[in-house]
Amino acid sequence: MSSVEQRLQTLEDESALQKRITAYLVAVDELSSVDAVLASFTEDAVFDMTGIDYGRFEGEAQLRQFFEGVFDTMSHHAHYASNFHIDKLGDDTAACRTHVMGMGRSKDGGDVLFYLQYFLEYRRTGEGWKITSFRGKPLMPLS
Amino acid sequence: MSSVEQRLQTLEDESALQKRITAYLVAVDELSSVDAVLASFTEDAVFDMTGIDYGRFEGEAQLRQFFEGVFDTMSHHAHYASNFHIDKLGDDTAACRTHVMGMGRSKDGGDVLFYLQYFLEYRRTGEGWKITSFRGKPLMPLS
Amino acid sequence: MSSVEQRLQTLEDESALQKRITAYLVAVDELSSVDAVLASFTEDAVFDMTGIDYGRFEGEAQLRQFFEGVFDTMSHHAHYASNFHIDKLGDDTAACRTHVMGMGRSKDGGDVLFYLQYFLEYRRTGEGWKITSFRGKPLMPLS
Repeated sequence: MSSVEQRLQTLEDESALQKRITAYLVAVDELSSVDAVLASFTEDAVFDMTGIDYGRFEGEAQLRQFFEGVFDTMSHHAHYASNFHIDKLGDDTAACRTHVMGMGRSKDGGDVLFYLQYFLEYRRTGEGWKITSFRGKPLMPLS
Repeated sequence: MSSVEQRLQTLEDESALQKRITAYLVAVDELSSVDAVLASFTEDAVFDMTGIDYGRFEGEAQLRQFFEGVFDTMSHHAHYASNFHIDKLGDDTAACRTHVMGMGRSKDGGDVLFYLQYFLEYRRTGEGWKITSFRGKPLMPLS
Repeated sequence: MSSVEQRLQTLEDESALQKRITAYLVAVDELSSVDAVLASFTEDAVFDMTGIDYGRFEGEAQLRQFFEGVFDTMSHHAHYASNFHIDKLGDDTAACRTHVMGMGRSKDGGDVLFYLQYFLEYRRTGEGWKITSFRGKPLMPLS
């Protein structure tokens, strides 16, 4: 049996990993602060949405440009996460998955709807767990 | 580093805050006991659904009347919560948010579907954390 | 007040119960390994989907046959769980509920969509909490 300290740390780490992706989704759906979105990523993070034809971005400058474009384009966002699953929890790295149903409306009136699973890699930093790799895979066909 | 007692208390409080909104949604979707719904609120709670044109209700008597009307009207309910997010956790008060996709069918055959975020304020009571303020904000346009 | 050991155990058990249904849904949506699906059930488990006309299956052989058929038939799956709720947590048994929005596409192009609540019974085993009874109840009318 692990020590009390180890067991508490595991519970706190698992909670923090899920809170990180939740904070990302809350910020993405607020559509008000790109900085709040970027706070969930390491500076060298890779954001790969080639699975739904949204491109691949690497490093804070590219992610900022991508999300600034998204925030300029969209008037509404709603992302519903589910099934948060921890594949690996190490001392300073982790790998997780979560289902997400993501929808949005653009300012020109177009609607999007995706049924995805995100594959997430994390690194423990001085500011807590941050996402180093974010990849979206469609669960249902893109319609 | 906080003490073991403080860390356990935080984990338990965070879990209890989420369980409270879950219990509310389970009771709302059962459509069988208004008392079970009201058990999630303090007696002075405010329930504000003006964001989706359902009105604003204050205090147990008004909330009871509102939910009795809902239970009389609806034949089916399904509310899917996601992205539970804690904005503030104090000793005896807390503020949280959660995404909810809410749908229902009325006894006369009408369907409703909302994509919302709930803004929740809680107070710690002798019966655990209860909701003192409940406000719904649409994430997607009302169709 | 419970001891530190008891409080940690409760937090870990609650987390493990939710992780079990999450692991099941992740495996069901991967559509790649029936063994991974069956790992969430005891050998004597009952899987009852009569509520949505999918039949009732008892014991590992019947469950295997059912899921092999599902995996042969479906090309895509996406199940979104929500509102995980613990009705009872005993020393070695537990009863929980979770909302699930389940969708899929079959290889012949047909789409299914269900709004359900799963009623789950668990038993603690040498391999952790496993599901002994799984029953689906529709929240919205089957369309």
